[in-house]
Amino acid sequence: MKSVDLLVIGSGPAGSRAARDGAAAGFSTVLAESGFPGGTCLNTGCIPTKFLLGSTRLLPLLETQKKYRTASGDVLFNLSALQARKDRFVQGSRAGLERQLAEAGVTLLRGKAVFTGPQSVRVSPAGGEKEVSLSFARCILAAGSVPASFPGLRPDGQTVLSSAGVLNLKEAPESLLIIGAGAIGLELGEFFHRLGTKILLVEGLPQILPAEDPDVGDLLQRHFRREGWIIHTGKRIASVTTADGASRLVFESGEELAASLSLLAVGRRANTAGLGTEAAGLALRPNGSLETDETLRCAENIYAVGDCNGRTLLAHAADHQARYAVAHAAGRVGAPYSPPPVPSCLYGSVEVMRVGPTEKELARNQEAYELSRAMLAENPIAQSSGQAQGFVKMLWTGSRLRAVCAVGHDVSHLAGASALLVEKQARRNAPLPVFFAHPTLDEALESAMTAATENGGAGSPE
Amino acid sequence: MKSVDLLVIGSGPAGSRAARDGAAAGFSTVLAESGFPGGTCLNTGCIPTKFLLGSTRLLPLLETQKKYRTASGDVLFNLSALQARKDRFVQGSRAGLERQLAEAGVTLLRGKAVFTGPQSVRVSPAGGEKEVSLSFARCILAAGSVPASFPGLRPDGQTVLSSAGVLNLKEAPESLLIIGAGAIGLELGEFFHRLGTKILLVEGLPQILPAEDPDVGDLLQRHFRREGWIIHTGKRIASVTTADGASRLVFESGEELAASLSLLAVGRRANTAGLGTEAAGLALRPNGSLETDETLRCAENIYAVGDCNGRTLLAHAADHQARYAVAHAAGRVGAPYSPPPVPSCLYGSVEVMRVGPTEKELARNQEAYELSRAMLAENPIAQSSGQAQGFVKMLWTGSRLRAVCAVGHDVSHLAGASALLVEKQARRNAPLPVFFAHPTLDEALESAMTAATENGGAGSPE
Repeated sequence: MKSVDLLVIGSGPAGSRAARDGAAAGFSTVLAESGFPGGTCLNTGCIPTKFLLGSTRLLPLLETQKKYRTASGDVLFNLSALQARKDRFVQGSRAGLERQLAEAGVTLLRGKAVFTGPQSVRVSPAGGEKEVSLSFARCILAAGSVPASFPGLRPDGQTVLSSAGVLNLKEAPESLLIIGAGAIGLELGEFFHRLGTKILLVEGLPQILPAEDPDVGDLLQRHFRREGWIIHTGKRIASVTTADGASRLVFESGEELAASLSLLAVGRRANTAGLGTEAAGLALRPNGSLETDETLRCAENIYAVGDCNGRTLLAHAADHQARYAVAHAAGRVGAPYSPPPVPSCLYGSVEVMRVGPTEKELARNQEAYELSRAMLAENPIAQSSGQAQGFVKMLWTGSRLRAVCAVGHDVSHLAGASALLVEKQARRNAPLPVFFAHPTLDEALESAMTAATENGGAGSPE
Repeated sequence: MKSVDLLVIGSGPAGSRAARDGAAAGFSTVLAESGFPGGTCLNTGCIPTKFLLGSTRLLPLLETQKKYRTASGDVLFNLSALQARKDRFVQGSRAGLERQLAEAGVTLLRGKAVFTGPQSVRVSPAGGEKEVSLSFARCILAAGSVPASFPGLRPDGQTVLSSAGVLNLKEAPESLLIIGAGAIGLELGEFFHRLGTKILLVEGLPQILPAEDPDVGDLLQRHFRREGWIIHTGKRIASVTTADGASRLVFESGEELAASLSLLAVGRRANTAGLGTEAAGLALRPNGSLETDETLRCAENIYAVGDCNGRTLLAHAADHQARYAVAHAAGRVGAPYSPPPVPSCLYGSVEVMRVGPTEKELARNQEAYELSRAMLAENPIAQSSGQAQGFVKMLWTGSRLRAVCAVGHDVSHLAGASALLVEKQARRNAPLPVFFAHPTLDEALESAMTAATENGGAGSPE
């Protein structure tokens, strides 16, 4: 049996980072990947979604100008040409990743890895080639996640699709029923809306984008309704099935909805099924994610990083965890894993960006906070494209900046500066640490920093 | 004669900030403005230019998708409708500014202020109303700047226009001859190019955007040439005049160019003529700007801030100087004025952003530096809109981040994060201070921070 210093399972943002860093640290490194190199993010997640949104982002700008009668004309997108460009981009990125791995000295093994013991796996290639058995000194498990499904809510191969299925449509459906108003549902809804698809959005919780505060969800909901979306929140769903060639949703109340296709975007679960975790002695939570200790280990010699440990289902968080795991395995760090605040972005015409906790989270922890806010309508760059709805909100604890949240056009671009301001724990009512250029969208950060306190959370639980 | 604690002359970014801060500091404050409140920036400068660019920014995005055959269709802009919206926006912003000044307790005096002594002025209203004489304990002079002109290069009221004239055109000219390839010329050229105007660009220096390094100028020049612009650099101009209803440019070599209209954008000079600076005992440099000491004073009790002191002709620099001047006048700071690095942005389809010195400037000071670079083609968000030319360049001195410069689509959005990274003097080869979200354009900053050193300036003079 071949023996390696480091086995990495999964080649998404966590796994490919871990493999490259591991090889750079001097470990003989094998990376096992059962699907396409790059994982969900590159192949069926963030990257193809943002590519489709980026390619069509002129459309809401055009609609705005037409509303103002400053522009006229019509634009038609060719979905199959867009898909072909997207596929070429993803294939090119995949080839680039494979080259980087090879240059780093990583051995890429295409096949499904299954633990056969606490220090061994068997890798079965999909093409029926010979199985490979490996023993490892240490392993970084970066198995990622897959779309969640529930009884009555499963892709059926007909009109009920997962995000991966919807991302590959060659024709825009007449109507699309989206179940789940998280980032995946909203971004894909935005894209198909631009292509002329009628959007029906259903969320079981009382607000859309339920991880954010109600002011953010409300603004988004008003925006999408103005765009013509039909939105149902706070209703429990009994089932989504194909009937007579179309999708049919039945609420528990008996009420029904129908659409050409439906997208199940009800969250993701750790991709740990069939990994042989029992053979390695690894403990799974009821939702399938791996329990990890404060050093991201799920066993003495096995780390679990990225989506599969259930901490933060974001590519950049996965990357950061992978860097730590390699540094820890190489003996370069010993301290517990302690990430800086993680930015997150929702893309679209109206975007959402946040670094640090929500008001809800602070209230849940009974932490008192102050709040300041700037409206994007006061920002000349937001005004310049005619799309100035939204705001930047800052939360302060003990006169230090704790969180920045923004909703509005282009606010994903505020993520880097916001992360730096939160990391430096900028002080309330202190001179600004830097110049913000005039006019830029950045100035909305300055406005929020210097705005009067709007109201404060009492720190009482919800 | 009425007497005030603080007289502010000029209501642009410097003057309106100085007046509001002065009133907040407890000074009885009069603000004299001879033109429109808001100065050049709001009325005939950055704001209207960015408004027109923002309103039409979908056009290069559409052209890109059409080139890829992923979109079809045509969009026509209505210039007079755009101008009407822009004028309404500027008027609204002006009214907002007047309201803010009134709320702050500032007395706005509409008229031309002329010094009658070291502590007195006469303000002459434009409408022929009664002159007002004022004495002041301290003055903040924020007179701004006006378009520069030279013999043979003056607006003639026919086809040879200044930026203010071009900004108010109600019809796009068939061709526009732009003299001067700085930010003003390039931004207005980009706007009229989008409306279908043929652009001819002439720059006396060897590169366009001459304040930037040659790699930036070269990339822009290739971009504009691909767009069909005719560009002449390094040629001395004898004259630009109106002949037979069109603009005619004659180079010193005798070569000629013609266009429907021409825009003189050959820089700006301090707006100090007719201010009575002699009566106040103020020294002017040969170019008309005011000499200031290390506390921004041009006399014991007179500060000069913003464009009129010739330090940095940028609105946010003016604002920062005004904050300092009031704090100094109020006795809250005594240390010399020492600004953090000033970001600057060029807007357009291909944008330029810089914080900190250029390579040229470091070389001139014989400072050794290291250089690292990331190509935007490697960034998935840049790729997503199909416009991925350009790069982020970082200059390091003594292993500390000294400057960030970027050129490419949307890079103005990197200004805030870049300013924060330069201000914190981020270290080379150190762990990243924050997470950058994936995928965002911000990640190009991370890529440049972690890229291998490309080459280093030897620190020898040019």
